[in-house]
Amino acid sequence: RERTRAVLAHRNFQRFIVGVILVNAAVLGLETFPAVAARHGALLSALDRLALAIFVVELTAKVYVERSRFPRDPWNVFDAVIVLVALAPATASSLSVLRSLRILRVLRLLSVVPSLRKVVSALLRAMPGMSSIVVLLSLVLYVAAVLATKLYGQTAPERFGSLPTSLFTLFQTMTGDDWGNIAREVMEVHPSAWIFFTIFILLCTFVVLNLFMAVVVSAMDE
Amino acid sequence: RERTRAVLAHRNFQRFIVGVILVNAAVLGLETFPAVAARHGALLSALDRLALAIFVVELTAKVYVERSRFPRDPWNVFDAVIVLVALAPATASSLSVLRSLRILRVLRLLSVVPSLRKVVSALLRAMPGMSSIVVLLSLVLYVAAVLATKLYGQTAPERFGSLPTSLFTLFQTMTGDDWGNIAREVMEVHPSAWIFFTIFILLCTFVVLNLFMAVVVSAMDE
Amino acid sequence: RERTRAVLAHRNFQRFIVGVILVNAAVLGLETFPAVAARHGALLSALDRLALAIFVVELTAKVYVERSRFPRDPWNVFDAVIVLVALAPATASSLSVLRSLRILRVLRLLSVVPSLRKVVSALLRAMPGMSSIVVLLSLVLYVAAVLATKLYGQTAPERFGSLPTSLFTLFQTMTGDDWGNIAREVMEVHPSAWIFFTIFILLCTFVVLNLFMAVVVSAMDE
Amino acid sequence: RERTRAVLAHRNFQRFIVGVILVNAAVLGLETFPAVAARHGALLSALDRLALAIFVVELTAKVYVERSRFPRDPWNVFDAVIVLVALAPATASSLSVLRSLRILRVLRLLSVVPSLRKVVSALLRAMPGMSSIVVLLSLVLYVAAVLATKLYGQTAPERFGSLPTSLFTLFQTMTGDDWGNIAREVMEVHPSAWIFFTIFILLCTFVVLNLFMAVVVSAMDE
Ligand code: NA
Ligand code: NA
Repeated sequence: RERTRAVLAHRNFQRFIVGVILVNAAVLGLETFPAVAARHGALLSALDRLALAIFVVELTAKVYVERSRFPRDPWNVFDAVIVLVALAPATASSLSVLRSLRILRVLRLLSVVPSLRKVVSALLRAMPGMSSIVVLLSLVLYVAAVLATKLYGQTAPERFGSLPTSLFTLFQTMTGDDWGNIAREVMEVHPSAWIFFTIFILLCTFVVLNLFMAVVVSAMDE
Repeated sequence: RERTRAVLAHRNFQRFIVGVILVNAAVLGLETFPAVAARHGALLSALDRLALAIFVVELTAKVYVERSRFPRDPWNVFDAVIVLVALAPATASSLSVLRSLRILRVLRLLSVVPSLRKVVSALLRAMPGMSSIVVLLSLVLYVAAVLATKLYGQTAPERFGSLPTSLFTLFQTMTGDDWGNIAREVMEVHPSAWIFFTIFILLCTFVVLNLFMAVVVSAMDE
Repeated sequence: RERTRAVLAHRNFQRFIVGVILVNAAVLGLETFPAVAARHGALLSALDRLALAIFVVELTAKVYVERSRFPRDPWNVFDAVIVLVALAPATASSLSVLRSLRILRVLRLLSVVPSLRKVVSALLRAMPGMSSIVVLLSLVLYVAAVLATKLYGQTAPERFGSLPTSLFTLFQTMTGDDWGNIAREVMEVHPSAWIFFTIFILLCTFVVLNLFMAVVVSAMDE
Repeated sequence: RERTRAVLAHRNFQRFIVGVILVNAAVLGLETFPAVAARHGALLSALDRLALAIFVVELTAKVYVERSRFPRDPWNVFDAVIVLVALAPATASSLSVLRSLRILRVLRLLSVVPSLRKVVSALLRAMPGMSSIVVLLSLVLYVAAVLATKLYGQTAPERFGSLPTSLFTLFQTMTGDDWGNIAREVMEVHPSAWIFFTIFILLCTFVVLNLFMAVVVSAMDE
């Protein structure tokens, strides 16, 4: 067991795993080119299975070494979930969506490369400070979507025909994409709709500005 | 009276109110789905009235408890306005706009959930520091809108045909949405219009950049 | 002379001038509504001339009071230029562009209202710190525009047909507006054009990010 | 050699070089106007060659003065590469792309003008602090592109038909340009595609927000 631990912790072994992940990423990328997939499909498929096998062996070894401490490290859980998701399509290859999710295996880079691991940890640590503002933004979005569905649902059914459609349209508006044309479409029937859109955009901008402020301040406290 | 105060301040009572608001939010959301509204319309309507009744009772109890101090807390005023707005459509149900505004009741979450209350307070406190810059931005917008209406009103009546239309178009330009196409439309007749749009966008960007700076600095002073 | 100085510096006089500016702004705004202009055109025109007359008297009084010190204060120069620009169209009323520029008189608010004056001063003080980065951005824009005109001028003449057209299109690209469609248009003929657009956008984003950084840092030094 | 060094370091000589670069920039800009190029083509071409000749002489003198220390200063390497790139088209004038790259010579301003040099150095110094986040963003982009190609490649071949196309479309989505229409196009066939787009945009926004945070923090450490 000590020997396995030493192997797993060895720098060259970690480099080897990074290499496997990168090769796997390239293989899954190459598979999207029909010409390449047609000619070297079998080879790519074999390489993909080989990479998966290596990951399974690595994961098993890690479980064997760390035993009950294994699930305490969230990165281990992350690795396990990704490999298991990847394992599923290998057996149930009929479902193309599941097969596509194999590319998520590349995200293992986040747990294997130390500098990426550090960045992701920092991102996750910044999350609690934002949570209240994210809830606030969601609340504004939900209220605005219910309002828009009731008020403009029949005028512009493609934009505000149902609650999910409105949520999508208003999320798009929040990112500033094409909102002028959406608003104009509604304003042809409801000339006062500019009030709704202007207030919504100002509110979102104001809240995002403050989200930003919170992030900067929390960054400086550290 | 002391007993009512104790009930109102009890943690479980506040949780209960949060629950009522969330159920109310879900009810008003479900009402937007025609299929659900057709089948369970009566139930949803009853739940909505029940939620409103609970809010009215809670508000009355609070007024009874706090008496003359009630209107001093702006959050109480906020709650009262929202419940009264919600009460209006319950009687004058013919006006669909008023009925739609019932969803604003969900904003009561802002005053009931402490963490949201804190965020909103922080946002409001950040406002005075921005007011001068907001006035400046409005001034730039107004001057540009009068100019654009005079100069381009006849060329592009859909965009700059009247002062309100120009204000809307220039607000859209300020958010960076689709301004290139708007400008090109005008430039077909007035080739020098790029000067107007470029100056307007640079001015707005510059002022917003400084609004940002002011927010960061004020955030750091705290 | 001392009495004139006292009048000019009196709080009520300054409020009076702010009032005149606001009335003037409203008058010029109302003039853009054809219905209002048709019915009350003479009145609006008279009010506009009255406001201008007041500004001229105020300016003359200030010159009389401050004499040689007058042009040393940049705000005085600003006021004088704006009133003179406004005076020009009053005589040469045939030129509609000059007439439209009368609205710039409203910008006198910036020099008259102390809080706006302070904000504008702060904005101007922030400028030198940005100048190098603005020059850098202009340089990138110019080089990219010459390149794009040469490479894509014949493919997409509406976008990159001449140097000014390219400058406009790339300024639009810099603001992120509709650049995907512009790039796709060019990529139909030059499939490698994505390199040009991606590098241009990344460069601009990177430089703007650093402009931002410079602004924050300079704001904190103060 | 000492005399050459003195000449090269003399303020007036550096001003002269800046002047040559600016004239060269203007010449290359003027060349893009067909009318000007037709009438004064020979003159412009001669001026361009003269500028290039001056740069070659300057570079040779610098190599002569600094000898083995020359390639140690990255700015010297930058100058040399730009002049050599410029030299290439002068001989192989058939390739219009290479000819167009002559405008890159204008970038020599970055190494010659001290204030620009300082800004660029500051930008480059900020890069390492961003590298992990840029890698993270690229990883997200790659994974999302492989997924989108597999899932939506046949639905929207113009947007997600191949891996490079998907990378371009998702880079565009990342900048917030026109993503609503792209998503709607896909959602007509795959109604659940909003999940993909929403997650992608939220992830990118979140990472960019943190990139920003990193930049501000690193700016303050200095
Ligand atoms: Na857009
Ligand atoms: Na946009």
